[in-house]
Amino acid sequence: MADVHSDDRIVLDPESGSASMADALRGLHPADIAIALGQLDGETTKSVLAELDTETSADVLIHLDEHSRSEVLDALGPVEIADITHELESDDAADVVGMLAEELQGEVLSRLEDEDRRAVEELLKYTDESAGGIMASELVFLKSGSTVKDAIELIRKAADEVDDIHNVYVTDGDRRLVGVLSLRDLVLGGAETQLSQIMDQDVVSVSTDMDQEDVARVFRKYDLVAIPVVAPDGKLVGRITVDDIIDVIHEEAEEDMSLMAGTREDELHEDSAFRVSRIRLPWLIIGAIGGLGSALVMRHFSLSLEKVIALAFFVPVITAMGGNVGLQTSTIIVRSMHSEFGLSGAARERLGKEWRVAILNAIVLGAGMCAVVGFWLGDWHVAAVVGCSLAAVILVAATLGTLIPFALRGMGIDPAVAQGPFVTTLNDIIGILVYLGMASTFLTRIT
Amino acid sequence: MADVHSDDRIVLDPESGSASMADALRGLHPADIAIALGQLDGETTKSVLAELDTETSADVLIHLDEHSRSEVLDALGPVEIADITHELESDDAADVVGMLAEELQGEVLSRLEDEDRRAVEELLKYTDESAGGIMASELVFLKSGSTVKDAIELIRKAADEVDDIHNVYVTDGDRRLVGVLSLRDLVLGGAETQLSQIMDQDVVSVSTDMDQEDVARVFRKYDLVAIPVVAPDGKLVGRITVDDIIDVIHEEAEEDMSLMAGTREDELHEDSAFRVSRIRLPWLIIGAIGGLGSALVMRHFSLSLEKVIALAFFVPVITAMGGNVGLQTSTIIVRSMHSEFGLSGAARERLGKEWRVAILNAIVLGAGMCAVVGFWLGDWHVAAVVGCSLAAVILVAATLGTLIPFALRGMGIDPAVAQGPFVTTLNDIIGILVYLGMASTFLTRIT
Repeated sequence: MADVHSDDRIVLDPESGSASMADALRGLHPADIAIALGQLDGETTKSVLAELDTETSADVLIHLDEHSRSEVLDALGPVEIADITHELESDDAADVVGMLAEELQGEVLSRLEDEDRRAVEELLKYTDESAGGIMASELVFLKSGSTVKDAIELIRKAADEVDDIHNVYVTDGDRRLVGVLSLRDLVLGGAETQLSQIMDQDVVSVSTDMDQEDVARVFRKYDLVAIPVVAPDGKLVGRITVDDIIDVIHEEAEEDMSLMAGTREDELHEDSAFRVSRIRLPWLIIGAIGGLGSALVMRHFSLSLEKVIALAFFVPVITAMGGNVGLQTSTIIVRSMHSEFGLSGAARERLGKEWRVAILNAIVLGAGMCAVVGFWLGDWHVAAVVGCSLAAVILVAATLGTLIPFALRGMGIDPAVAQGPFVTTLNDIIGILVYLGMASTFLTRIT
Repeated sequence: MADVHSDDRIVLDPESGSASMADALRGLHPADIAIALGQLDGETTKSVLAELDTETSADVLIHLDEHSRSEVLDALGPVEIADITHELESDDAADVVGMLAEELQGEVLSRLEDEDRRAVEELLKYTDESAGGIMASELVFLKSGSTVKDAIELIRKAADEVDDIHNVYVTDGDRRLVGVLSLRDLVLGGAETQLSQIMDQDVVSVSTDMDQEDVARVFRKYDLVAIPVVAPDGKLVGRITVDDIIDVIHEEAEEDMSLMAGTREDELHEDSAFRVSRIRLPWLIIGAIGGLGSALVMRHFSLSLEKVIALAFFVPVITAMGGNVGLQTSTIIVRSMHSEFGLSGAARERLGKEWRVAILNAIVLGAGMCAVVGFWLGDWHVAAVVGCSLAAVILVAATLGTLIPFALRGMGIDPAVAQGPFVTTLNDIIGILVYLGMASTFLTRIT
């Protein structure tokens, strides 16, 4: 029994040579081999893979992270890549071929068997993040007149080619889905039973052009293990299995979180400080430009600041509050847009709810800050200005945090961008403008 | 064929009465019924469910979001809850019973059949977020001497009780795992074949006390559909299916994102502005207290600010940069801690890498800001102070962003907390201290 701990790691010694490294790895699960090889460079990984059999190499390649995989592919020639591709299911084969330069793609494709080549070429036509882009073409499907025995015979024939068979699909003469059976139905059905008698006619399917995030939502909603994919003309063309959906959910979460933090998820596999810096700098430059915007606003009010220097003390309070409220609001709005429970509602309705929350928070924090500043400085005029503008900034930030995700979605941009540094920066500038504007207007010492 | 669009929603009219609402829902998938009922209050949902058969009601209850589910349970009596629980698999039954007040729990449990009650009581002993807490006790397992025919017979008997059978487990006399078979192996094996001849002896299993996030990583790594769970004494006690793992991955991502934004994921289902405000206020108050810390620091340097008011203009640049760099760094560190590719490494090693990136960014942004401020204000002394302290703040924020997640993990706290408002606030204070400290030390007009 293999005992699994996520901290179990095989450490390879690159000095020991590829044959001895391969010996240490042989017999392990391809996923574990991939993790061990992830520490090595592309050339070394390639020579270790060459020591293993082609089927294992192919499985390992698919389990490598994208960065290492592309390094290994760079080190391999078209013949070796074609051999590996031959061992893969069509979706993985298309992923590998899709990573190659166009010229190499042609060379590898020309070396595949006709059927494999057609399947890969077909899959490459779909966009990466659609149902078509993540499906495999290998399918077990039969005409509705077939029996359980026929189905088992077909599974036996497909066993070499298809790794995970969860369901058998039943189609009409036009390859349109009419039913689905689980393997359990087959195990329990008699050999001569007609599939149409025991199949489930309520087949949940998705279209090739559905976004992968929506496909993931369908899996989550109906607790699926596999889903059939149909072309726009209604014909059954592929299936997606749950392991790929787990990757989709994971990647989308990483992507959203990276957007919030102002970085990119592929940074994780980047070793060069220069390249990491290049990924992060654009977001920091946006922040810096925004900061200069704030500086411009403050300079505009420099006379007020000179007269009452205490006003400057509370600029960080104002910007921090605008940032926090804006992020809380936009995160909830974006999350509810992604939720399957239809909570997003119309922008106006959501704004109403966010305003009610913001008014409560504005009263508590505005009054609290006014009291603290008043007792601390003994200057109740400044305290009133700080308290009132803090309340105003909370309302403004909640408004922007609600409306910007809707605006982004309306423009076809991922609303998660609203959780990133851009909106926080905007909130800083507006917050300072509100604060110093109020101070200049209402503080009698200044006017 | 059911065509699935994630935007398909059934809108119920609560005025039409529970019988007519139930008519509109009958025949739909429980997940779709749950979404339609999610719009109604607990009492109305309860009366609609009463019109449906108990099995459907039970499935719908499990598909309701946690908030609606608890509302419905509040409206139901112990007899009805026991009837529903009877229809559920043990993991869902334990979830439902676990949501009840202690007294009601006892009443419901006493109404269950002995076997069901023991299973639920057993599962309730495990902590919520462990493998034991999410597993189901329903299992199909046989002694190693059994044949394919025996296994099919057992599946037939279990078919009523276990919904999704993906694997059949083989154990020794002590209920210890010795092998696993997929349903495909059974379909393709001859009736008299010994299970031990065709089973896979490399069974990946998890222990009851493994954290659910680690279980999810095991699923992701090995592309699993189900995993057996063993007690600390090595005995097979349950299994976890992939649909529950999808929920775990989804919830953990929502939780991390909520931590970053300073809110809580259950806010989504909260209608009352008061309760939402109570969820968000603590984070905002931390931000406000931090802001007062910044104000204290600025007051300490108020003489310097009075002499060179331009220094105040760049406080937002400094705080924004500290916040952004800190968030970029902590996000990458936390993500790599969660990654299965073993990239987290030791704190010292990671700090080295982050410092290299920070030094590059510090040079680019520090020099750039110095140039912009210099040409803008024509005051190259202030420009130099702004540029140098911006660079210093980038290095400090990168250091904190790296070390704080390690420190939190060391203290047994979720490192994702480092991505939240607390660290950003800390960066604000330290950034201003560095900036005004440098200004007071090096600007000759001040000293």
